[in-house]
Amino acid sequence: MPCIVEILSVGNELLLGNTVNTNASWIAARVTSLGAAVSRITTVPDNLKEISHAIRESLRRKPDFLITTGGIGPTFDDMTLKAVARALKVPLRVDRIALAMVREHYARRFPNRRISLTQPRLKMARIPARAKPVRNPVGTAPAVRVTVKETQVFCLPGVPKEAKAIFRESASKAILAKTGGMIFAEKWLRVQGIMESSLAPIIDQIMAKWPKVYIKSHPRGVEAGGRPHIDLHFSTRAQNSEGAERAVLGASRDLARQIRNVGARISLKA
Amino acid sequence: MPCIVEILSVGNELLLGNTVNTNASWIAARVTSLGAAVSRITTVPDNLKEISHAIRESLRRKPDFLITTGGIGPTFDDMTLKAVARALKVPLRVDRIALAMVREHYARRFPNRRISLTQPRLKMARIPARAKPVRNPVGTAPAVRVTVKETQVFCLPGVPKEAKAIFRESASKAILAKTGGMIFAEKWLRVQGIMESSLAPIIDQIMAKWPKVYIKSHPRGVEAGGRPHIDLHFSTRAQNSEGAERAVLGASRDLARQIRNVGARISLKA
Repeated sequence: MPCIVEILSVGNELLLGNTVNTNASWIAARVTSLGAAVSRITTVPDNLKEISHAIRESLRRKPDFLITTGGIGPTFDDMTLKAVARALKVPLRVDRIALAMVREHYARRFPNRRISLTQPRLKMARIPARAKPVRNPVGTAPAVRVTVKETQVFCLPGVPKEAKAIFRESASKAILAKTGGMIFAEKWLRVQGIMESSLAPIIDQIMAKWPKVYIKSHPRGVEAGGRPHIDLHFSTRAQNSEGAERAVLGASRDLARQIRNVGARISLKA
Repeated sequence: MPCIVEILSVGNELLLGNTVNTNASWIAARVTSLGAAVSRITTVPDNLKEISHAIRESLRRKPDFLITTGGIGPTFDDMTLKAVARALKVPLRVDRIALAMVREHYARRFPNRRISLTQPRLKMARIPARAKPVRNPVGTAPAVRVTVKETQVFCLPGVPKEAKAIFRESASKAILAKTGGMIFAEKWLRVQGIMESSLAPIIDQIMAKWPKVYIKSHPRGVEAGGRPHIDLHFSTRAQNSEGAERAVLGASRDLARQIRNVGARISLKA
């Protein structure tokens, strides 16, 4: 049973199609490399009810981690923390440590100016009771961490540089502690001269032989103006790297052999 | 009340972080430009239970449209249609028209070869009872359309070129018919020399004056190695383009005036 992670992305810009959700794919790739598995990514607008519903739905599925991005800044539409408080039925309150973090950020950024703690600035230190602020090494708003039954919730900012820095410094360590060194291994194989529908029964056969290896076919090429081909992705998780590598390599070699037998070409070596 | 659209993206590659979900942002941008609003984007793995749960959850929220991408090809892990059938409690069955579409595709692509209808090829014509196949102008697997109470469900392939072509040819027309010519208008403003926390109360004030205009601030610049600035996005929906344009223009001019008053700079004209 792998360590399960859900991602909740908050932001109208993602739903307007203005912004591609690269935060989610970056976090998903990091989570995967840490040996855990992302089970769902949900994107909701800057709307209190929608965010708190999505948080409650996620907690009901009991993932090991729920990582949110976006909605923790100073503007009125940054309402992720309010939504967390609502979902957890706890009040929001100004946190002493979070406030010190916000103050310190402004003092560092404007050493010669007195920056008054206006409401929008105070807002960044107002976090759900029970939650802990998490240092933001590159921006103003602290991130937030709170444990709800079996789920550790991390609320990160939406600005990619800040989300990444905080993920690296805090969430990644918590995930690694939970996976206990589970290893993810993957391999790509490129195939030409066979249709996906002809490849399907071959994949079934190899997956029956290597039940822990997941094989997914991605038809490509025509799209990008190139020659049609299929990229095959082999992946597995195991307790040690030799076991994981052996499985993906074995499965990809077996599949490559079968493919050559039916006269198709392999252009990335198994 | 705008026309509400949900997007459901199916595919392990999106959760492994291998693939950025550009299908979702492309569809979201198209939906927005058609005058409708995307309320949620959900990404789930190639797992029957997860997909059918997500479909049921979405239908319970009663969006006008649910657009799925991915999982309708010939391989075993393409299980979106099975999941739709399960969510709707109807059987899957080979559809006569879908089968003709699959046959025609192979006949067109391989005019001199007899392509036998193997199980994986037949699979692409097996769709939920009650559903209608939708022509795929560029690929093999037909898309699928089914109406469930107030929701029109469109299941598109995951290959971007196919998803886009089918969206343009079918889903976009259905959405336009529903929005009845609702117009989306937007405008960007770039601001320098002011912190987001200082901008927050100004945005509140302008949104109070222009209640139909949504203003979102995006702190940028430092990230990309450039000078720090904030991009402001103004958007609205209205029954006619003059009304929509007037609102975003009015709000952005009012905001620009206030910003100049506090000594900050505007680098994209209001």
